[in-house]
Amino acid sequence: MARDQVHYFGAGPALLPSEVIEQAASDFVCYKDNGIGLGEISHRSGDATAVINDAKSKIIKLLEIPDTHEVFFGQGGGSGGFAAVVMNLSAAYAARTHKKGKVDYFVTGSWSSKAANEAKRLGLEVNLVLDPKLVPRGGKKFGAIPPKSTWKFSDPKETAYVYYCDNETVDGVEFQTIPDVPEGVELVADMSSNFLSKQIDVSRFGLIFGGAQKNIGIAGVSLYIIKKSLLTSLPPAELIQLGIPVVPTFLDFQEIVKNNSAYNTVSIFAVRVVELNMDYLLAKGGLKVQEAQSDRKAEKLYEAIDKYPQLFKSPVEKDCRSRMNIVFNIVGDGAEEQFVKQASAKGLTGIKGHRSVGGIRISNCKYKSARPIAKL
Amino acid sequence: MARDQVHYFGAGPALLPSEVIEQAASDFVCYKDNGIGLGEISHRSGDATAVINDAKSKIIKLLEIPDTHEVFFGQGGGSGGFAAVVMNLSAAYAARTHKKGKVDYFVTGSWSSKAANEAKRLGLEVNLVLDPKLVPRGGKKFGAIPPKSTWKFSDPKETAYVYYCDNETVDGVEFQTIPDVPEGVELVADMSSNFLSKQIDVSRFGLIFGGAQKNIGIAGVSLYIIKKSLLTSLPPAELIQLGIPVVPTFLDFQEIVKNNSAYNTVSIFAVRVVELNMDYLLAKGGLKVQEAQSDRKAEKLYEAIDKYPQLFKSPVEKDCRSRMNIVFNIVGDGAEEQFVKQASAKGLTGIKGHRSVGGIRISNCKYKSARPIAKL
Repeated sequence: MARDQVHYFGAGPALLPSEVIEQAASDFVCYKDNGIGLGEISHRSGDATAVINDAKSKIIKLLEIPDTHEVFFGQGGGSGGFAAVVMNLSAAYAARTHKKGKVDYFVTGSWSSKAANEAKRLGLEVNLVLDPKLVPRGGKKFGAIPPKSTWKFSDPKETAYVYYCDNETVDGVEFQTIPDVPEGVELVADMSSNFLSKQIDVSRFGLIFGGAQKNIGIAGVSLYIIKKSLLTSLPPAELIQLGIPVVPTFLDFQEIVKNNSAYNTVSIFAVRVVELNMDYLLAKGGLKVQEAQSDRKAEKLYEAIDKYPQLFKSPVEKDCRSRMNIVFNIVGDGAEEQFVKQASAKGLTGIKGHRSVGGIRISNCKYKSARPIAKL
Repeated sequence: MARDQVHYFGAGPALLPSEVIEQAASDFVCYKDNGIGLGEISHRSGDATAVINDAKSKIIKLLEIPDTHEVFFGQGGGSGGFAAVVMNLSAAYAARTHKKGKVDYFVTGSWSSKAANEAKRLGLEVNLVLDPKLVPRGGKKFGAIPPKSTWKFSDPKETAYVYYCDNETVDGVEFQTIPDVPEGVELVADMSSNFLSKQIDVSRFGLIFGGAQKNIGIAGVSLYIIKKSLLTSLPPAELIQLGIPVVPTFLDFQEIVKNNSAYNTVSIFAVRVVELNMDYLLAKGGLKVQEAQSDRKAEKLYEAIDKYPQLFKSPVEKDCRSRMNIVFNIVGDGAEEQFVKQASAKGLTGIKGHRSVGGIRISNCKYKSARPIAKL
């Protein structure tokens, strides 16, 4: 099937506008007057630096990022981010206090669970903000965000950061507002899967990060937005003495920023895809428009799910349903398989639930389909 | 300028055959009958898994990799590899001995110097095999590999691994044969810049790794070949007690292998470029042919350099001159700038020396130019 015959609802990697994909493919063969493509030019050439700078400035414009924050591109995807957060922000806390801080994690689904485990693995003392007994729903491990009155934070003075995942792709759980955390504590958000789907107040975050392959671009690059005051550390030997894991240089936020995201060979092609995608979003009216579209698409689906309870079951509480990943079950033996099959015949693909939880998952591309689907 | 009007000699990212680039660009728009491209399909889909498996099996065929070794794709490039080597191989040594091993580094140029510094940064005791006083040449920091009689290794029983960089791109220094190391000690090689330019006896290595963007493919993925017996570790808590840095999960060789290079979202597009490039190399006669071509190209250049000592100066000893990166200086004020300018006018680009050392650097693509250059 050709591009205009399919609509893909995968959770990530995800669909990108055809205009973006086609321009990127052309740039991969030959970029400007270089006679070579974006996979081949030096990451420190003038044209490569311009791609990085333009992508950054368009992200700043789209998200209205204040001067207090820095944007950069990292490697290792979201999972790389789990480790990079632990090491960089523990070091920043140690630079302020000469202590090893505790870390607080909201665990609301598979991804924040993995992130918390990474912190433990690397030797941090992890406090769970949410009571694990209060998060399961409908026979699934996750599906609820318990009320604020039940949240338990560590002593703010001893806390390196509070971490949460804004949207859980596997479980379909999304924070509807930024969680309130104790004053003076830095808030870290994994927005891998809902970045650019809504307006956000960046000033409230110490760090926002995400793999690019959902809403931002393609795999091979990840996006970081960090409060500049957190770009600080101690010498590695001092960190080791405090029992803080030393960050490898290529994941060191200070080194990456100092080298304009090109400490080592960043994929200029992947950054170019980000840049083109930002052009597309800016031309389509920015995040206000994306937010309205995402909300409307999600509402339509949840409406249908709730209207036919004899057919559909949603395992997620209404107050934390994801606008990005609408997960549900279909009642009846073999009904889900049949649904997937029939949808596929109509060019609607990528709708199977994550292998760990099963069911159906419709992931909203943040884009209005760039081109109409030929036959439905 | 179009692709067929330019010949690019950059050190990496480097030129790839136009056949590879053009097929990859097409796959980026739409792959097989998916209706979406390789930047968009799930990294765990059947088609993505086939790309990974096919790329792997073609690498195994091309390099004649024995069953004792495993091939996988990593993230973070060569610099990511510097840290991943330290953490994974220290853990493997600890699994055998319940001790923190020492590490031995050959430092013959910028890249091995960076790798050794990364090991120190992460808390390892680094022994330099080569006397730093014996490596400078012609006013440059590097340019010689001193004779074996001067090499100093740590006690083999206490050594986690011996590390070297097979080819130093910045300094133009290349090992002409695999260095002999004490029996029983694992040898680690960074082959980022000369992978696939010659036949190698993989069985002599504990680990070979490299960023893909020189001879293998494009940035965004790196290649690892590891002896299977080194895929072992201790629980993180035990490593911390021994003072060994714990590897982040996304860099953990065991996790990556267990998940067939897709523990987290590997760039399937970048792996596909590798696969296409392996097809190209296999079709062109394999590594024997590449080796002969690389040797001949390098000989031609060094012949000219040595023939006109009044014009050219090579800062590298003849017994360790790189076949990949031919570095030299041109005598006379402004002569190098003029050379670069005139070459560029003829469509020969990417020949400036690395910014840290200056001069001229001609990096051999391992490919015979896929298409003739239009005008010379």
